[in-house]
Amino acid sequence: MEVTLKDKERLDDLGRNGYRIIQNKEKFCFGMDAVLLSDFARVKKGENVLDIGTGTGIIPILMESRFPFGTYTGLDIQEESIEMAVRSVALNGLSNKINMVTGDIKEAVSIFGTASFQVITTNPPYMTGNHGLVNENQQKAIARHEICCTLEDILSNSARLLQEHGRFYMVHRPFRLAEILSACVKYKLEPKRIRFVHSYVNKEPAMVLIEALKGGNSRVKVEPPLIIYKDVNVYTDEIYDIYGYER
Amino acid sequence: MEVTLKDKERLDDLGRNGYRIIQNKEKFCFGMDAVLLSDFARVKKGENVLDIGTGTGIIPILMESRFPFGTYTGLDIQEESIEMAVRSVALNGLSNKINMVTGDIKEAVSIFGTASFQVITTNPPYMTGNHGLVNENQQKAIARHEICCTLEDILSNSARLLQEHGRFYMVHRPFRLAEILSACVKYKLEPKRIRFVHSYVNKEPAMVLIEALKGGNSRVKVEPPLIIYKDVNVYTDEIYDIYGYER
Repeated sequence: MEVTLKDKERLDDLGRNGYRIIQNKEKFCFGMDAVLLSDFARVKKGENVLDIGTGTGIIPILMESRFPFGTYTGLDIQEESIEMAVRSVALNGLSNKINMVTGDIKEAVSIFGTASFQVITTNPPYMTGNHGLVNENQQKAIARHEICCTLEDILSNSARLLQEHGRFYMVHRPFRLAEILSACVKYKLEPKRIRFVHSYVNKEPAMVLIEALKGGNSRVKVEPPLIIYKDVNVYTDEIYDIYGYER
Repeated sequence: MEVTLKDKERLDDLGRNGYRIIQNKEKFCFGMDAVLLSDFARVKKGENVLDIGTGTGIIPILMESRFPFGTYTGLDIQEESIEMAVRSVALNGLSNKINMVTGDIKEAVSIFGTASFQVITTNPPYMTGNHGLVNENQQKAIARHEICCTLEDILSNSARLLQEHGRFYMVHRPFRLAEILSACVKYKLEPKRIRFVHSYVNKEPAMVLIEALKGGNSRVKVEPPLIIYKDVNVYTDEIYDIYGYER
C-alpha cells in the first residue's frame, strides 16, 4: 500500500502484524499509556468498540491487532488528526474494520445513537485547567488539557453510548482517582478493575488503568501493580510481553 | 501497675514504650491493619483524635506511643470492648491521655458535638451484608460486618465530627475502593493520600490506607505500594520499621 506523508510526518512500525502508524512529532505522538490501555482492554467477538479522542488512531489499530474480530470506531474533535488516522488505517488495510469520525464527544449520542457500543476505550486529556501548563501547540494542548471536553463529559456520554453491561476502559493519572471513581459511580459506570502503573516498584504510580461496567454492582478488583522497569533502562518481563519485544 | 485479666483474656506486648494490651482471642484480636493505620496516620501537637470502632483500643494506644502530644478518644458500641480497653489504657498509665467511650457512631455528634476533633482514625467493619459469612461470635461479627453501622454512617458522621481541614484516616479493603472514594467525595472528605498494601509485590492488594481532608480540593496522591513480604516469612524492611522489630 502506498503512503502519502505530509511535511513533518513520520511513519512508525508498531511491531504487530506489520502495522505502521503516521505521526507528527510536532503535534502529538502516542505514548506508553495508549499501549498499556490497549493491552488492558478486552474485546469479544462481534463487539462494537468506540475510541474517544482517538488522535492518531493508535488505540483502535493496536486493539484490532489483538482482537481482529471486533469492529472499531475512532472519534476525535480534531479534523486534522482524523485525516491522518484515516491514512494510517488505509495503510494497514483496515478501512473495512476501523471507521474514523470527526466529531465532539458531547454530540456523540446524536452521531451514533444511544447504546450503540459494547466497549469504549479512551486515553483522554489528563490535565484540568488548573494543572500543568497549557501547551502552545493547539493540537497537543487539546490532547493533554480538558479544553474541548472534561472527564465528566466523557463519562456522562460514555454511559449513554454503551449498552447495558457494556465495558468502559480508560487510562488516566492517579492524582485524579477520587474524582474519576466518584464520577464513574455517579454515571453508573461501576469500576470493576483498577491497575496502577509504576515506573519502579518503590515509586508512586504514574498511570492508572480502569475498567468499568455499565450497570455493574459495587465491587472492584485492584490488580497487582504493573511495574515498567526492573532496573535502569531495563523493562520488566511484563512490559516486554505487552510490547511484544524480543528479550 | 497491677492488671486484672478475665477468663480467656491474654496480655500482649506492643513493643513500644513497654505498652501492653489486653485481648481475648475468642472475641477479637487486632491485626496488621490496625498497626499499619497507626503508622499511616499523622497527629500534630495538641490535636484531638477520635478512633471510631476502637475495639481493644489498639489504635489510640499505638498512636499515643508515636504522637504523645495528642489527646485521644476511643468510641465503640460494644460495652464489653470499652471495658477491656479502659483496663489496657490504665495498665499503660494513659488514663489521662486516652478517653474510652461506649456509644454509637450514629449518635457521636450528640455525644461529642460537631467539629470537636482535628483527626479521626477508623478500622471499620469491612464486609457488607452481602460479603463473607457472618461470624457466629457476636463480638467478632460486629467488628467485621456492617451490622451496627455502615461505611456511609462512618463517613457522614466523621464529616460532622471533624473541624474544617481536619484529617480522616481509614484502613479498608480494596474491593470497596470505588464506594469509599465516591462516598468520601459526597461528604466532602476529599481523599488526599492512598496507599495499597500487598502481601507480595506481584499480588493484588489486601488492604488500602486512605487519608482524606475535610473540605480539601480534588487532588490525591497514590503512594508507592507497601509490600509486606520480600520472601516467604521474611518481612520487608519497611514492615520491620513499622513494627519496630530488630532485623
